[in-house]
Amino acid sequence: MHWKSVAIIGVGLIGGSLGLALRRAGLADEIVGVGRRAASLRAAEKIGAVTRATTDLAEGVADCELIVVCSPVHLVAEHVRDALQHAPTAIVTDAGSTKRQILDEVRKASSASDVRRFVGGHPIAGGERNGPAAARAELFEDRLVVLTPARGTDPRAVATVEALWQQVGARTLRMSAAAHDRILAATSHTPHVIAAALAAATRDEDLPFTGSGWADTTRIAAGDVELWCQILDQNRAHVLKSLDKFAKVLANFRSALEEHDARKLVRLLTAGKKQRDSLGS
Amino acid sequence: MHWKSVAIIGVGLIGGSLGLALRRAGLADEIVGVGRRAASLRAAEKIGAVTRATTDLAEGVADCELIVVCSPVHLVAEHVRDALQHAPTAIVTDAGSTKRQILDEVRKASSASDVRRFVGGHPIAGGERNGPAAARAELFEDRLVVLTPARGTDPRAVATVEALWQQVGARTLRMSAAAHDRILAATSHTPHVIAAALAAATRDEDLPFTGSGWADTTRIAAGDVELWCQILDQNRAHVLKSLDKFAKVLANFRSALEEHDARKLVRLLTAGKKQRDSLGS
Repeated sequence: MHWKSVAIIGVGLIGGSLGLALRRAGLADEIVGVGRRAASLRAAEKIGAVTRATTDLAEGVADCELIVVCSPVHLVAEHVRDALQHAPTAIVTDAGSTKRQILDEVRKASSASDVRRFVGGHPIAGGERNGPAAARAELFEDRLVVLTPARGTDPRAVATVEALWQQVGARTLRMSAAAHDRILAATSHTPHVIAAALAAATRDEDLPFTGSGWADTTRIAAGDVELWCQILDQNRAHVLKSLDKFAKVLANFRSALEEHDARKLVRLLTAGKKQRDSLGS
Repeated sequence: MHWKSVAIIGVGLIGGSLGLALRRAGLADEIVGVGRRAASLRAAEKIGAVTRATTDLAEGVADCELIVVCSPVHLVAEHVRDALQHAPTAIVTDAGSTKRQILDEVRKASSASDVRRFVGGHPIAGGERNGPAAARAELFEDRLVVLTPARGTDPRAVATVEALWQQVGARTLRMSAAAHDRILAATSHTPHVIAAALAAATRDEDLPFTGSGWADTTRIAAGDVELWCQILDQNRAHVLKSLDKFAKVLANFRSALEEHDARKLVRLLTAGKKQRDSLGS
């Protein structure tokens, strides 16, 4: 599948990397970068992630066939609504880390026929670095992109968005927005809270005595605070459930230690090692 | 400082790396590897970490001036006692991740005059990989080695052990065994429990949806179960306190989410990010 014109709204790590990947694979004649800050847009142009850049969303998306909203999660629904409105036949997708609240907001703000052209999406890729400077064409290779079409979503829109991600090297998988949010609470959002809590619980004077273990375990705590606050807030029901499950397992570790129960401790450590080993390094 | 003969008891990642570092810097004429398993000793000889290897501790340490016990923590006290006994003038140190229980056990098992030749030590270096195959000469460069001399420890023994670590590129710092164990509970042992609990709390069917965040946060959960069980058990009083502190911070995150309190959530995430950023990547 090839596009004459694709718009990317938000040219940070994800949007910038998608632009680079589209250009490298020659999948679009024109890639329009839409952003709020001129500096980011210039950076995206400079690295070759977009062929044209504008801060005017309506003008930027007007002639595009495909629009990918890569804005921070609290802006995604608004940008999807605007994209649907200003590009009346385009297919619109997003890359937000939460899916249910975005879908609900898009449904409230757009006509039923417009909503059919929107396919929620989430590429499970990224890192603690942000911005177009961290972008790279291979970011999505062998990564998983979850798509969350709803009951009324146009099947051709789903097929197009699947083709987009598969052509930049990713695997795609469809599930409901609710299932996505439940799973990602466990695999991404709750780990972020845990890493941040561990870092915050460490005293300044103890920091010189940290090694690679502390560094790895807390790495994602360096992520953008505003962005993560939005993600956690949007998915708080699932994150709370997932935190409670973690707290239960942690309490088991605690009682094994308190009761000096080496067999129980070995069993718990083994359960953790098994899950971690199944992933590879 | 240069030694005619140094013994390394336990030739895994730490012992093997120390042997390689000593040889690279030309700090010892002979490096005797002492171990329980012939296969590990052969591997250590093959990579050039030791010049001679034996499974007989008494024979191995007999003519050595300096003995470094790099055994798993539950064997350290026993090996220190044997080293002090079979090398009646040698200086003995160790590389165990806990310090107080080892010191107590060495004191119980050895004469007061022998104990004066023992300096507890802990190089804060390593990783989730174990064994001589993972050893490398530069493992200790720019790393911190905590030394825990007690009131009666011979000052010349302390100076010798400091010279050992400094000559392989590490910085050294003296503190009490209790202070070491309190700090390392916070910076190493509790993070291990947290990583293992997070990994164990993740369902098999959710694992395909993990990204680099989960992978980083749980990395140390892949560590050796028996070894970590011993470390946690030896330092359980401090680990329990440290877990409780973490649980309090986590409960703050939980209430911020439950109360939909974005300002509180930002404050907590910022506190975590500040600690993490102060360390660098």
